[in-house]
Amino acid sequence: MQTPKHISKLVDSLRKLPGVGSRSAERFAYHLIDWSPQDLSTLATLLSEIPLRLQACSECGALIEERCPLCADTRRHGQTLCVVATFKDIFAIEATHEFSGQYHVLGGLLSPLDRLGPENLTLPKLKDRLVHLQTQELLLALDSTLEGDTTALWLKRELAAYPIKISRLAFGLPMGSALDIVDGGTLARALQSRREF
Amino acid sequence: MQTPKHISKLVDSLRKLPGVGSRSAERFAYHLIDWSPQDLSTLATLLSEIPLRLQACSECGALIEERCPLCADTRRHGQTLCVVATFKDIFAIEATHEFSGQYHVLGGLLSPLDRLGPENLTLPKLKDRLVHLQTQELLLALDSTLEGDTTALWLKRELAAYPIKISRLAFGLPMGSALDIVDGGTLARALQSRREF
Repeated sequence: MQTPKHISKLVDSLRKLPGVGSRSAERFAYHLIDWSPQDLSTLATLLSEIPLRLQACSECGALIEERCPLCADTRRHGQTLCVVATFKDIFAIEATHEFSGQYHVLGGLLSPLDRLGPENLTLPKLKDRLVHLQTQELLLALDSTLEGDTTALWLKRELAAYPIKISRLAFGLPMGSALDIVDGGTLARALQSRREF
Repeated sequence: MQTPKHISKLVDSLRKLPGVGSRSAERFAYHLIDWSPQDLSTLATLLSEIPLRLQACSECGALIEERCPLCADTRRHGQTLCVVATFKDIFAIEATHEFSGQYHVLGGLLSPLDRLGPENLTLPKLKDRLVHLQTQELLLALDSTLEGDTTALWLKRELAAYPIKISRLAFGLPMGSALDIVDGGTLARALQSRREF
């Protein structure tokens, strides 16, 4: 007896999720069979309505449902503009409650391997917004990876003509970490960026 | 900025999958946002059509799409009837290509903790089929757990009046295992069931 075709198709589709292989997809599929028709239709509707319900803000690029709550918030000033690679990063920064400026989603990080070049990023829009928002500080909240470093350097060069301060998230020890566990690269950065205590 | 409601709802729904917590569900949700509308609608349709497309065979209880390929297969004899707890077990046994008889899905294992009692299992149907199929051997393919053992003993007692041989899957070392890694219970069972070599 072969696996029913409907199950095979379901497994194929679920395998596209990140970190989900054949085994996990099969486990999900068999579990889904036991879901109530109502739960199934809820999830189905949520999935099919994603393109309808969620969109990128045409101004800052955040993931929004209707009006962008960030751009519309008058208490948020554009004097400090935080540049992030993707909309997901905004949620992470917002969760800290430490930033009250505006955001700008770059649309990725420069990565020749992923064929992501300057033409894929929203630099022209960023230049417009810098002027329009009278930005004084551009905070680069980019990954501490090769791609993040490259993109930060590229932005610094591209924006050299603008009268703004460009800053980047600090590098150092993560909270609660022991020195003998932290990797050498992090420790080296933490030493270079040491501060008076 | 709060997470868009559509995302929160999606995360809540995805968390119902086995082994998926908030973090994984969030990761899935953000990944799904990048799926094409077509891929999303394919998965949505597959999900909502599960109750429509998949059903349990009214005879043996296997998971089927239309006609049961097991019950309809005339090359499969009912002389040996393999009793399994759930339809998933049929796929596992079929994958071995070692069994050519018919199946019977019991609908679970006796488990007071999960409130699964004899009234939830398909014993009456099994008794009917035993007679109808002229079964000679009933092969209990049940888990080697407390619930599996209890259910096997219960079936043996309930079917004592029938002129059939009742067998159970062998217990012993799993293939490729080392003696010092195998647990004591398995080793004890393997010793009790030792065979002439």
